[in-house]
Amino acid sequence: MKNDATIDIDIKRALTSKLDSIDFENLKFGHIFTDHMMTCDYENGSWQTPKIMPYGPISLDPSAKVFHYGQAVFEGMKAFKDDQDQIWMFRPKDNFNRINISAKRMAIPEFPENFFFQALDTLLKMEKDWIKKGFGNSLYIRPFVIATEPGVSASPGTNYKFMIICSPAKSYYNGEVRVKFSENYSRAADGGVGYAKAAGNYGAQFYPTNLAKEEGYQQIIWTDANTHSFLEEAGTMNIFFRINDTLITTPTNDRILDGITRKSLITLAEENDIKVEVRKVPVQEILDAAKDGTLKEIFGTGTAAVINPISGFGYKGEKHELPVLTDSYATFFKDKLMKIQYNLSEDKHGWRYLVK
Amino acid sequence: MKNDATIDIDIKRALTSKLDSIDFENLKFGHIFTDHMMTCDYENGSWQTPKIMPYGPISLDPSAKVFHYGQAVFEGMKAFKDDQDQIWMFRPKDNFNRINISAKRMAIPEFPENFFFQALDTLLKMEKDWIKKGFGNSLYIRPFVIATEPGVSASPGTNYKFMIICSPAKSYYNGEVRVKFSENYSRAADGGVGYAKAAGNYGAQFYPTNLAKEEGYQQIIWTDANTHSFLEEAGTMNIFFRINDTLITTPTNDRILDGITRKSLITLAEENDIKVEVRKVPVQEILDAAKDGTLKEIFGTGTAAVINPISGFGYKGEKHELPVLTDSYATFFKDKLMKIQYNLSEDKHGWRYLVK
Repeated sequence: MKNDATIDIDIKRALTSKLDSIDFENLKFGHIFTDHMMTCDYENGSWQTPKIMPYGPISLDPSAKVFHYGQAVFEGMKAFKDDQDQIWMFRPKDNFNRINISAKRMAIPEFPENFFFQALDTLLKMEKDWIKKGFGNSLYIRPFVIATEPGVSASPGTNYKFMIICSPAKSYYNGEVRVKFSENYSRAADGGVGYAKAAGNYGAQFYPTNLAKEEGYQQIIWTDANTHSFLEEAGTMNIFFRINDTLITTPTNDRILDGITRKSLITLAEENDIKVEVRKVPVQEILDAAKDGTLKEIFGTGTAAVINPISGFGYKGEKHELPVLTDSYATFFKDKLMKIQYNLSEDKHGWRYLVK
Repeated sequence: MKNDATIDIDIKRALTSKLDSIDFENLKFGHIFTDHMMTCDYENGSWQTPKIMPYGPISLDPSAKVFHYGQAVFEGMKAFKDDQDQIWMFRPKDNFNRINISAKRMAIPEFPENFFFQALDTLLKMEKDWIKKGFGNSLYIRPFVIATEPGVSASPGTNYKFMIICSPAKSYYNGEVRVKFSENYSRAADGGVGYAKAAGNYGAQFYPTNLAKEEGYQQIIWTDANTHSFLEEAGTMNIFFRINDTLITTPTNDRILDGITRKSLITLAEENDIKVEVRKVPVQEILDAAKDGTLKEIFGTGTAAVINPISGFGYKGEKHELPVLTDSYATFFKDKLMKIQYNLSEDKHGWRYLVK
């Protein structure tokens, strides 16, 4: 099948909309879902006709492999509405490519590009009234795939469900974020699945994060599992460190998610003559820089948070506060990125995608 | 609540049984389930009344955390029927303890012991006709917990479902098993969740195992993620190596599952004057022993397989076949263990549990 071939989509509209009952000024991230969802089943060796139907529960056999073996991957994307009521997405092809990279690592069949974009466009047009204008408002989009085949033998399933659900969003994080540099726990192994948005990578972080919360931190910056001496990524964000006027971030590898916000920021930095070093980040270097005052900023990047400034960090019982800057890179890049996302500035790199 | 306090269980019986339609001589592992299942919801901070109901699909919101963040753990157990129609289990308290150890690591609330055993006993008595007499026949029991709360924010859920489903079994593996020693991929990180029966640990193995299958192997023996120079465990089994007349197996740690068959075998070995060394197992030592003929056996241990002899292994393109022994430890221990499980020999260690 040619990759842009037009496909059939079965559409069943919701009889009523929840839209009027939603308080868009007070949205908790990821808790309200729109009126419709997309679902597409993989059966008999191929992806079947995508369906768009009223959002609601799905029914699975209790032995479905997703429950037992975590054979599941996901993506996070956003749609934005400009002043002309046009709906935009940000580099969605990269999310599409990445969900298939994740799928391959989890032995899940890849999803066809034309299915993905045609189903997504159709769904977003149906949900257009859920996307509110205004800088900061967006529709968070969650594509995911789960293994649905019944049976508890520990082997890949032959049946899968690809779904897209959507949740109106303002911003992901609220308040100040302090992070703990991980000393003992780790997120990913060399040769493991850390680079994939595999479901189990996230659940595995909850307990260490709870322990960090008890110490007054909101997130963990994970260190390498072998030595715990290099800083890698946070729970749902890649991490940048600013020492003097240079940004430093760890290279992607099989432990690190190839973040789309991360790589966009690297491009924007180069374009704005801000030096970025993509190299390993020793914990000791950051501790030293915090002590001598050259550590200016730490921030996380990710679709949900866009850019999330970190106000302090802790390591081995010592806590460090970061300065409050009037010229922070976090603010600079967040504004740059969001203006591209909301069609408020030039799109030099062809990152915007118009939903048609 | 006292740990042995009697609890209420809501029971709804199936109107008909599938039992007569099952071909018990040709059971594929983990594909047929009995007439009933146990389900117990965690809501408002506590586990609610367990329910035993007809086996059937469960309905979840598509944003349930188990689908997105792999917050799920499981156990594997078996029930056996002796000639007097008594139903026995093997060290189920250890499985109960382990599911709570796994749950804790995945930020899932622990399940009360009296809920577990009273629900399990009640379910097994209802399904007693599914447990067939005869050495090798058993009922495979799969307790598992999933995070059911809707919402895609990456944080632990507040709602969970603990379930027990049961599947009649003969034996897990068929035919000869050859294993590949992992050279690049890995199963678990130091500081990670390898010791937990967390769902994502298993799905993450499917793709490397598929690659190994293409090379003619059925399973992988994982090596340590840091150096790939020590042998650790297989997909669903701990691993023992016999060099001359000594058994060697790796110690448990935060990467290795604390297998119940593994530790039972260590006890039986000591009791039968078979030397067991619990220490790191260098790949090179096994390669050398294979070459000089002192490597007599490799076998896996686990609830599903009991003991699974390995007939050959491969590493860096070289394949090694193991000798066929008339006095194999695998056969010796499998017989010892199964006789205890089926109430055919003395139970010196109090490992048997009578379902009452």
